Amino acid sequence: MIEVLDIIGVFVFAISGVLAAINKKLDLFGVFIIAFVTALGGGTLRDTLIGRTPVGWMVDLQYVYLIIAAYVVAIVFRNYLNKLRISLFLFDTIGLGVFTLIGIEKGLEYGLHPTICIALGTITASFGGLIRDILCNEIPLLLRKGTIYATICIVGGVLFFVLREIEVDNSVNELLTSLFIIIFRLAVVRYGWSLPVLKIKTA
Amino acid sequence: MIEVLDIIGVFVFAISGVLAAINKKLDLFGVFIIAFVTALGGGTLRDTLIGRTPVGWMVDLQYVYLIIAAYVVAIVFRNYLNKLRISLFLFDTIGLGVFTLIGIEKGLEYGLHPTICIALGTITASFGGLIRDILCNEIPLLLRKGTIYATICIVGGVLFFVLREIEVDNSVNELLTSLFIIIFRLAVVRYGWSLPVLKIKTA
Amino acid sequence: MIEVLDIIGVFVFAISGVLAAINKKLDLFGVFIIAFVTALGGGTLRDTLIGRTPVGWMVDLQYVYLIIAAYVVAIVFRNYLNKLRISLFLFDTIGLGVFTLIGIEKGLEYGLHPTICIALGTITASFGGLIRDILCNEIPLLLRKGTIYATICIVGGVLFFVLREIEVDNSVNELLTSLFIIIFRLAVVRYGWSLPVLKIKTA
Repeated sequence: MIEVLDIIGVFVFAISGVLAAINKKLDLFGVFIIAFVTALGGGTLRDTLIGRTPVGWMVDLQYVYLIIAAYVVAIVFRNYLNKLRISLFLFDTIGLGVFTLIGIEKGLEYGLHPTICIALGTITASFGGLIRDILCNEIPLLLRKGTIYATICIVGGVLFFVLREIEVDNSVNELLTSLFIIIFRLAVVRYGWSLPVLKIKTA
Repeated sequence: MIEVLDIIGVFVFAISGVLAAINKKLDLFGVFIIAFVTALGGGTLRDTLIGRTPVGWMVDLQYVYLIIAAYVVAIVFRNYLNKLRISLFLFDTIGLGVFTLIGIEKGLEYGLHPTICIALGTITASFGGLIRDILCNEIPLLLRKGTIYATICIVGGVLFFVLREIEVDNSVNELLTSLFIIIFRLAVVRYGWSLPVLKIKTA
Repeated sequence: MIEVLDIIGVFVFAISGVLAAINKKLDLFGVFIIAFVTALGGGTLRDTLIGRTPVGWMVDLQYVYLIIAAYVVAIVFRNYLNKLRISLFLFDTIGLGVFTLIGIEKGLEYGLHPTICIALGTITASFGGLIRDILCNEIPLLLRKGTIYATICIVGGVLFFVLREIEVDNSVNELLTSLFIIIFRLAVVRYGWSLPVLKIKTA
C-alpha cells in the first residue's frame, strides 16, 4: 500500500516541480533538476542526515525512472495539467501524507527517538519544496506566512506515535495517520487556516 | 565546562534565530526552523561532512529540547529581548568561542589534520548563520563586507594548535582559545575592524 | 593524466570563484569561501551523497593547499586575469571534462548503476557553481536559460558508458570522453546553442 502511494507521491511531486520550473522560465535541464529536487530532495536530505548512504535513489533506480516519466508526461501535457490544478493539489496532498510516514519509518528502522522520527517525516515530506524554492531564489514557501503545511506533518507524526503507544496495528496506524494528514490539509486549504506571525513592539 | 558553554551557545544562537525570523515575518513554524538551523545547522553540516551520522542532535535529544525551550522563551519575551541586544551579543560571542572549540575537537576525534580541524571549527561556529541567511533569501552576512566574523574562528583555531604544539594542557588551551576568540570579537565590534574588499581595475 | 588535469581543474575553478566573488564585492573571507565552494562544492556534495566520508578534501590536503595557492594567485593578478577571460574559459572547460570523469569513476568504485554514475559526474562538474550562485543569492546559472552546461556532462557520460560497453580501453575512453566534452562545450559557446524554454498556454 505504502509502496503504491510512494510511487504516486514521487510522480506528483515531480509534476508539480516541472510546472513550477516552467513558470520560472528555466531551460529543459533546469526543469528536470527542479522536478528531481522537489520529488526526492526531502528524502535525500533525510538519508544524508541519518547516514543511509549511498542515498535511496542511488541504489533503487525506480525513483529516477519515475521522475523521468513524470518529466516527460508533465512537459507533453503541460497546458492541460495547468488546468488540473485541483487534481494536482489532491495528489500533492496524498504525497504529503505518504512521505511523512515513510520518513517516520526510516527513523524507526534506525532506532531513533519518536521526536526525531517526526522530524524525519517532516523533512521527507516538505524539504524537497524548500530546496526547490532556494534554487529558484525565493524565501521558501514553507517558512512564509500563508497556509499551514509542514506543521500538518508534525501533528500527523504525533498522532502516529500516540496510536502506536496504544498498540494500534501498524498498517491500520499508517492508514489512519495518512488519512488524518490528508483531511487536515484539505481543511487547512478549504478554511484558509494559517499560523500566526508575531510582531515585535519597538515603541 | 565546555558542556555548560555548549548549552549556552545553542540556547543563545536559537534565540537570535527567533528574533531574526520574526523580523522576516515568518510564521511560527518558520520561526522554529530558523531557530533550529541557526543553532544546529553548523554542527549538522560538520557531522554530515565527516560522516558522524546520524548527526549529533538525532542521537542526543537534549539539543532539541534546548531549542524548543529557547523558542518558547524568545517568543514570550520577544519585546523585552529586543532591547537586550547587547546581552544577546555577548552570549552570541560566547557561542562563537565555544562552537569553534567543539568543532576542532570533533576533527581531532576523527584524526583529521589541524587545517581541517580549524575548518570544522569555523563551520560549526559560523555556518548555522549562513544557512539561516540562505533560507531568508539574503546574501549570507558571513560573506558580505562588514565586520570580521568567521575569520576570528580561523585565527582562534591557529592559536589552539600553536598552544597544543608547545604542550599547553588541553583544558587551559580550551580556556585561553575561547577567551581569545571572545576578546577578539569584542574588539572587532568595538573598533569596527573589517576585512578589505578588493576591486578589479577595468580601465 | 587524470591527476594532473584534476589539479588544473581545481585550480582554475578556484580562480573563477575568486573573480566572481570580487565582482559581488565580498570581503577577503567571503572570496575564499566562494573559491573553495566553486572548486570543491560539487565533489563534496557527491561524497556526502554516496557516503564517502570524511569527504575527499578532508583526508587529502593537497586540495586545500591548491585552493589557497589559487586564491593568492588570483588576488595578486586579478587585474590581469580579468583580461584573460578566454584562457580562463578554456581551463574551465578542461575542468568540466575532467570533473565529469572523476565523478563517474567514484560512482563505479562504489558499484553504482551507470545512470547514477552519470548523475555523479554531472554533480561533480557543475554543482560547485550552483552552490556558489546560491551563496551569492542568484538563481543558479546552471538552471537558467542560456548556454548548455550540465547537459554536456550528461551526454559525455552516456558516451563514456557506450564506449565502455564496446570494450574500449579505459585510458582511451577517458581521453575520448574528456575531449568530446571539451569540444562540445567549445561548440556550444561558439554557436550559442541553448536548450529550449517551454511556455504554458494560459488562453
